[in-house]
Parts: sequence; C-alpha cells; structure tokens
Amino acid sequence: MTRLYRAFACFCLFSLLAYAVSAQDTSIAFGPERARWFCIAQEVQPVLQQTVVEPVGLVRPVRDSSAFQGWRMEPAGDMQQFYDMTYKRGTPSVIVDFGRHVTGYFSFSLHTDGWSDAPTRFRFTFGEVPAELTTPFDPYPGGLSRGWLQDEIVTVMTCPEHITVPIDRRMAFRYVKIELLGVSGSFQFDFTGMRVRAVSSASGTPMELAAGTPEMIRRINAVGLATLGECMQTVYEDGPKRDLRLWIGDLYLEALANSYSFKNHDLTKRCLYLLASLADSTGWVSATVYERPEWKIQGKGTHCMDYSLLYGVALADYVKYSGDTATGRDLWPVVKRQVEVAREALDPAGIYDNALKPSWLVFDWKSDLNRDASIQGLMTFAVDRSYELARMLGTEKEVSDWPKLTARMKSAARNAYYDRKSGLVLSGPDKQASYLSQVWMVLSGTLSVKEGARALSAIMESPDACRIGSPYAYHYFIEALIQCGLEEQARTALIDYWGGMVHKGADTFWEVYDPEDDFKSPYGFFPINSYCHAWSCTPVYFINKYPEVFQR
Amino acid sequence: MTRLYRAFACFCLFSLLAYAVSAQDTSIAFGPERARWFCIAQEVQPVLQQTVVEPVGLVRPVRDSSAFQGWRMEPAGDMQQFYDMTYKRGTPSVIVDFGRHVTGYFSFSLHTDGWSDAPTRFRFTFGEVPAELTTPFDPYPGGLSRGWLQDEIVTVMTCPEHITVPIDRRMAFRYVKIELLGVSGSFQFDFTGMRVRAVSSASGTPMELAAGTPEMIRRINAVGLATLGECMQTVYEDGPKRDLRLWIGDLYLEALANSYSFKNHDLTKRCLYLLASLADSTGWVSATVYERPEWKIQGKGTHCMDYSLLYGVALADYVKYSGDTATGRDLWPVVKRQVEVAREALDPAGIYDNALKPSWLVFDWKSDLNRDASIQGLMTFAVDRSYELARMLGTEKEVSDWPKLTARMKSAARNAYYDRKSGLVLSGPDKQASYLSQVWMVLSGTLSVKEGARALSAIMESPDACRIGSPYAYHYFIEALIQCGLEEQARTALIDYWGGMVHKGADTFWEVYDPEDDFKSPYGFFPINSYCHAWSCTPVYFINKYPEVFQR
Repeated sequence: MTRLYRAFACFCLFSLLAYAVSAQDTSIAFGPERARWFCIAQEVQPVLQQTVVEPVGLVRPVRDSSAFQGWRMEPAGDMQQFYDMTYKRGTPSVIVDFGRHVTGYFSFSLHTDGWSDAPTRFRFTFGEVPAELTTPFDPYPGGLSRGWLQDEIVTVMTCPEHITVPIDRRMAFRYVKIELLGVSGSFQFDFTGMRVRAVSSASGTPMELAAGTPEMIRRINAVGLATLGECMQTVYEDGPKRDLRLWIGDLYLEALANSYSFKNHDLTKRCLYLLASLADSTGWVSATVYERPEWKIQGKGTHCMDYSLLYGVALADYVKYSGDTATGRDLWPVVKRQVEVAREALDPAGIYDNALKPSWLVFDWKSDLNRDASIQGLMTFAVDRSYELARMLGTEKEVSDWPKLTARMKSAARNAYYDRKSGLVLSGPDKQASYLSQVWMVLSGTLSVKEGARALSAIMESPDACRIGSPYAYHYFIEALIQCGLEEQARTALIDYWGGMVHKGADTFWEVYDPEDDFKSPYGFFPINSYCHAWSCTPVYFINKYPEVFQR
Repeated sequence: MTRLYRAFACFCLFSLLAYAVSAQDTSIAFGPERARWFCIAQEVQPVLQQTVVEPVGLVRPVRDSSAFQGWRMEPAGDMQQFYDMTYKRGTPSVIVDFGRHVTGYFSFSLHTDGWSDAPTRFRFTFGEVPAELTTPFDPYPGGLSRGWLQDEIVTVMTCPEHITVPIDRRMAFRYVKIELLGVSGSFQFDFTGMRVRAVSSASGTPMELAAGTPEMIRRINAVGLATLGECMQTVYEDGPKRDLRLWIGDLYLEALANSYSFKNHDLTKRCLYLLASLADSTGWVSATVYERPEWKIQGKGTHCMDYSLLYGVALADYVKYSGDTATGRDLWPVVKRQVEVAREALDPAGIYDNALKPSWLVFDWKSDLNRDASIQGLMTFAVDRSYELARMLGTEKEVSDWPKLTARMKSAARNAYYDRKSGLVLSGPDKQASYLSQVWMVLSGTLSVKEGARALSAIMESPDACRIGSPYAYHYFIEALIQCGLEEQARTALIDYWGGMVHKGADTFWEVYDPEDDFKSPYGFFPINSYCHAWSCTPVYFINKYPEVFQR
C-alpha cells in the first residue's frame, strides 16, 4: 500500500516537475533530469520507525552554578506519583522526564471520576535541556521566530479525553513542563496516560566499541549516536527542534557518522538527489531545501559556496561507502557544476575572492573569522575529492584540468596566506591567525603534513588566535589533527570538547557549545538554540573510523 | 448513511444503557424505559445546518464611556485591505469583524510568495462583545474555568497552510483579534482566506411581524431570533460560548420562543427525552446534563427544584404546540415523578420548605433574593400546568389530588406571604418585598388578577424592593404583567430592558444585563459572561404571541 501510494505520489510529482521544467527556460541546468532525480529521491524515502516512549519520572529544576546554564534536574517522584495526583485549581506545575531525548508526538489522557463541567487549559513546555523550562520565553528577545520555542497552550473542552499536543506539531525534548492554566472548581481530574510516539528513520545496529574503550569515549559515542538518530527523519535534518531541515553541511557530517554506524545509505542517496533536483536554474545547489509543506521545485536559493562544494565530497563519500556507482554517475554532472560555479570566484592568480561571486560562507558561528584562507582551502579540498570521485566513476577525462587547478590554488594560497616564519596561515588584510585557516590549509593539502603539524601546534599555543565557535567547525579541526599525525591532540580535543558536553549532562550534542559560555547563542536567546544538532554528531565517525586513536 | 449511522449508534447506546440499568438497583425509577427514551432522543437529533460566513471588515476598538462596557468598534478598513496586508515581524494586531454573532469553526489560510523558513505563532482572541478584546484575560480573576475564555495560541509550522483554529473547538463570537507572536525575519506572508463554518440546528422561517410594528420591536425580535438560533445546536444550549449545555430553565424559555418562530419541535422533544433518560435513580431530573464527551447515563445530579418542576410545564407546552400527545404520554411518568419529589419539600401546612428537600433554587442571579414565596408560587404554577397536561393526555385520574394540592398551597401562601394591607407579597423571615415574589404569586394564580395588578404596580413603585437581576427572571416578570392586564407596562418593560441591550449594540442578548452596571458578572470577571444566552431570547415569544401588545 505504501509502495503503491509512493508510486502514485511520484507520478504526480513527476508530472508537476515536468510541467514546471517545460514551462521554464529550456536552458535551465539539468532540465530534463530534475523530475527523474526527484522521483528517485521519493522512491527511497525511508519509512519512519515509530516507538512509543513513556516518561520515567518527575524532576525538579535546581539552581546549580556548576551545572549547564545554571540548572540541573533532580528526581521528584516516580510516574505513579504523577498519575496518582489529583489535578484541581491550584495544582502546581510539574515536569515530567522522558529519560532521554525524544522526537515525536506527545499525547496524554485525562480522566475524571464523574464528569467535567468546563474546559481545562494547559501550557505544555517542551525542553531539550533544563534551562528551557526555567527561562521565561516572553518577552522574546531572540532573532529567529518565537514559533520555534516549544510551548503550546491547549484547551481541552471536555474530560475524559485523549489529546495529542498539538495535533500536527512534532516536538523534540526530554522534559515537558505541565502548567494547569484553567479548570473549574467543580471537578477534579488526573492524567492516566502520557507518551510520545517517537519517530526516526535510523535503523540497524551500530558497531560495538573495542573492549577496554574508556568510559568517556563510550559515553561520547552513545550521545553522538542519539544525536544522529534523532536527526535522521525523512531527510538528514539539522535539528529536530529547529530547523527540521536539510542543509548540505549537516548532511555531509551526518552521512559520515552514518557510514560508521547505522549505514542507512539510502537516506544519504535521497538527500543528494533532492538537492540536485532542487538546484537553481544555473545548477548551483542550494545550501538548504524545504520539505514542508511541499518540496520547493526551485527554491529561492540560499547559496553557501562552502556547502555547495561539499556536495561533491558528500557524493564521493557516498559512493565510497555504499558502492553505488550508478548514483555517482547519475549525479556527477551536479558535482561538475558546483566546481564550475565556484571557479567564477577565482581571480586570475587562483585566489578565491568572494566579491566575484558573492555567497554566504558558513564555516563556523564566528562573525570575526576571516574566511579567505578557509574557503581557499575548502575549495581545493573539494575539487581534489571530487576528482577522486571522477576517478572512481571513470569520468576523470571530463575534468582533466582539475589537478592543475588545485595545484595552482595551493601555490597561490601558500603565497597569499602562509607565513613561513611563524609557520602559521594568516588570512585577510589583517593577517588573522585562526584555527580554521590552519585547518583548511591542512585538509586541502596546501601545507605538507609537517607544515600542518607545525601550524596546528602553533595555533594551539596562540592565546590570541581566532578560536573555533561551533561543533561543526570542531569536526574539521579534529580531522586536520589526525591528518597531521597529531593523534594524541585529536583524542584530547575530542574528549575535552564533546566530553565537556557529556560532563554537563548532554543527552544529545548541542548546536552551539562554547566551554567558556553556556549561554552563547547566535540568535540572541539561548533557549532558541537547538540542543540536538546533527553537525555535532561526528564523534561517532571519529571513534569508529579511527579505533586506534580513540578506542584505547 | 446518516440514518444508518444513527441507527447503529442508537443500538450501541441502547445496549450500553440496558447494561448500565440492569447492573444497577432494579428499583431505579423508569429503569426499563431509560434506554428507549435515550434512543428516541438520538433518533431526533437534528442535523446541524452549516453556513460559511466570511468576515465583513476590520474594526478598531475605541474608548467610549457611553458604549457598553466602555468600548465600541469603529470601522478600520475593508477585508481587501486586510488580505492586501503583508504580515511580517512587527505587524500590529488587527480585529476582524464577522458582522454578526457566529457559532462555529474558524479557519484561515496563509500564503507566501516563496516559502517560510520558520513557524509562525499567533494568538487569536474571539469576542462576542468589544470589551472581550480590550480586557487582558490574565492574571485571570474569575470564578469559572479560565478555559472558557476564547483565546487560543496557534503555531503554524509551515506556510502556505490552511488552518482551523483550533481543530476541535467551536467558537462563539463576532470579532476575532489576530496577534502575530512569532515569525522569522526572512519571509513575509499574507492571509488569503478567512471564514467560519457556522453551525446551528435552527431552520425554517419565523413569522413576519405586522406592518407598522415599531422599529425597536423589530430590532428586539431580530436580536432575539439570532440569540435563539445560535443556541439551537444538537440540544438547546444555554450559551454557545459557555456552557454549551442543556439546562432545563433555558430549555423551557427556548422552547417557548421556538414555538413562536422556528417551530423546530423535534429539538424540544429530543431535550425532554434526554433529560428523562438521565434522571437520577429516584427519577428526579437533573437541572443540566452533559452531552460531551458522552451523555452521562446517570450524572452526578445538579438538582434545582424550580427547574425540575418546569420540566412538566415544558412538556405541556411541547404537547400543546406540536400536537404530539404520544410523546406526552410517554414522558408523563417523569412529570408525575417531579411533582412527587417536590412534595417532599412541603410542610404539613402546604408551604414549600427547602430545608426538607434541599436543592439549589435558581430563579435569578440574585444572592439577596429570598426565594420562599417564589418557589411556593413556581411549584403551584407547575403542578397546575402539569395537571393541564394530564387533561390533554387523559391521565388526570392518576393525579386527581393535584387540584386540591394546589388549592391548599395557594391558601397557605396567602396566609404566609400575602400582606393585604400593602397589597404586596412578602417573603422570608425579613418579609422581603421583591419583584419575583409578586411575579410568582401572580403566575401561580395565588393572587387574583386584580391583586396581582396591585402587587406588581406597588412593587414597581417601591425603590427599596429587591429588583430583578437577569433576563431569565425578567421573562417571568413580563409574563406576570401581561397576565394581570398590565400590557402597557409589559410593553414598556420589554422595550426598556431588551431594547436597552439593543441600544448598547447587542447582536445577541446577554446572559447578564443590569442597566445600571455593564460589568456585572456572577463569576467575578465580566469577559467570562456569555453574551449570547438562551434565556434572554424570549422577546421572540412575547412579540409573536401577543401581537396586540407588542406589534403596534
């Protein structure tokens, strides 16, 4: 039935896309291919695994300056105590703990001995971390939509009743605070059932870690797996609380972690096809695409050159880990196109100049980061990895000038950014020394292993260096350390950074983590941060790919 | 299909009731009849008429000390202006006017040119009168459940979208205030459609008023019809905003008005059968029964002797207006039982003593009203009217002692309450002179027409008399004036009282109306009052029953 429905849906979408494409300029990139690609993406849409999760107990927030964001939860009773509670006017709010991060649909039942003579009114506040339940949301000071915050007011007209809150909103949380805002004085009620229909497309059994793997590594791996699993829905989402959306940067890291855990390669395939089918008219893939309320046939592009270049790297990894060269060949034109688009930003010397082809360069949550050296390195890295893909596919003749291109870029970068004296990469007019500039000059092979090790060691000893701001950027830092043979430093950095979140009680890894500032938020209000964020899941990749470094 | 469904539902309910009854004490009153009665009630459940109502324009609340509760609405644009508005962060709240009171399901569509990257969050506040939209609901000072207030917070996850707010809550309102609480800075949207799927079981065409009927009477009649129509749902509700429920007192007055307008007698029949099937184990009918989430087979009784006695009067009227003597005969035992129950409260002298069979006596929203004379009169009136019913049905032999009973009650009442000197009925230990005591001694025939006219005239000239507090009690006052031949006074009283509401802008008549105090509320907070309330609809009955008094 599901298969039949999909086939029909696919037919409809195909017709729609075919029409949309035919109605447009015939010179549109990949014109005839898009509808087919979209269909393939829909064909491999995963079935969501549904699991009923019941809460494990009541908790109470306690101020604790040593806890993350100043709050920790302590046990406040078991669920039987909650179900035994008689709700009436004046019943104080309670917080129910599901014991782990869940993504899904929350429901409960209300029960009365007799009847109800009036509606009850509740506020349910869903939190991934304790401080979301202790920080008033209004007046809302944040930059993103207030709508992302997970509090809902619900009127239950009669009792008894079974309610899903709210009917069409999937929530991501561990804790739910229940506040009774309205009830009549004439009746009492109690909760008789509370659960979450949790959803995820992650399936399969991740690898066992080696005997003797230290406990902290085990815990980091487990939290990473939870993070990845919660973000694996009908696409690789960036975060199940916010934005619920496919971004290339997140996809790239999620796919890496997936290749070393669940191995649900079809989800990667689906995302790569979706991005291809929804590229702009020049063939430039958008950094993010929208699944709801319908896939955008040609979205208003959000273009990030670092992300569009990573598309080819993600496809190369997909082919390598899945062995699916057919998909590689099918999407190869998209990879070529991303490199062609990026080349529009190269100056005659082979230096990437964002003014020539302006786009948002993500890299990190760091407004003070000069991105010149980073994008130079990332483009070099991506073109080289895309050339590797061409060789896997036997299409390298089509891009025979790429090796020459990256050689020229490396040489130009060394001239422009490498300071032989200090051994550091310095980026931009102010010669900024940042972690990421070193990282990308390492990953691109612009620096030799020896030079890279020196640069990374030097930057770690520079107190004034522009540091790393997010788990996303931290991934590349760990990778660069390993690539330069600085394995002990990689291990320490991973344990310090992701272990720091575990120490602070993370059930899933956070979108933003600054060991010095629990309240850091790119959005002006820390509760709007996502606390289960895909780009933070990569310890799963590192721990399982490099057992000799991490599982000892 | 509907018929088949009903038959099946009826079968299920019958089985359930049969089981419930058989499981109980076999001495339960009407034991074997209840399930059958319930089935008959379900068989005549009306089909709700559905009408799509679109808003007529924008309005803006303006402070006006001469307006009801200090606020009036003035026009603020047409709907095209509203639909042309671009919604984005900072868009101020607007109030949409549906032009009339509607009861139903509110929905709207959101539209974007491109896409939405975040949820939008709204507060919708539905108001029957302007001040509901200008008075903050929180902190809520009222006595009834805060849940009755019609404000809902809605998160719309993606855009475009068509939304019904909220999916299962029927609203009663004329105005809806729209506040945008959350949106991202990256997109804009607009409303493309807004409507109410209005529901009512009222059908048929009320009578035309005589040519030359004064404009104010026409307006009172129209507002009364709107009030009645909005309260006619699957039962006679007391109010579509609050409590959405069948009460005998409201049913009695609604059925009277219905008999002189829509003539949907099946709704009366249904309500009478429901009340009978859900009487308590002694056969005493509950003042109110609960339709949702399921009909209470045997509710925790809310017993009001004035209401249970009116059951027989309502059945007598039903038989008289519909001609359906079969129903009259079927439910006759219930009427007898109500009289028997009431007799338990009579002392040997024939005086009703609430201490002997305690129950809540409604009569009016007046805590200072002494109800002794009123209940004495009401019981006498009800037993006499029930005896009239018996004569219509040919069952008067079963209750041959009733005429003697009421004669004794009248005689006792004259001794206990009638002050020949002043011509006033005085009630209770403090000899309270109230409007209602006169009214009920008139309606019961305890006073002669002449005595009644004298008593009513005297009370109207007593500045210290306990006055009438609600439209419900006002009905009986008008009826008593007419019965005593004080037609001019009846006409003036009706125009003053209900016309006062019309003057103050009523679209439907209010639950509570005190010409001296717009903010009066039995519940401690005037916005929780119902502003479309069944018991206020009876001008329809008076105007159409007594054209010689009112249509001139």
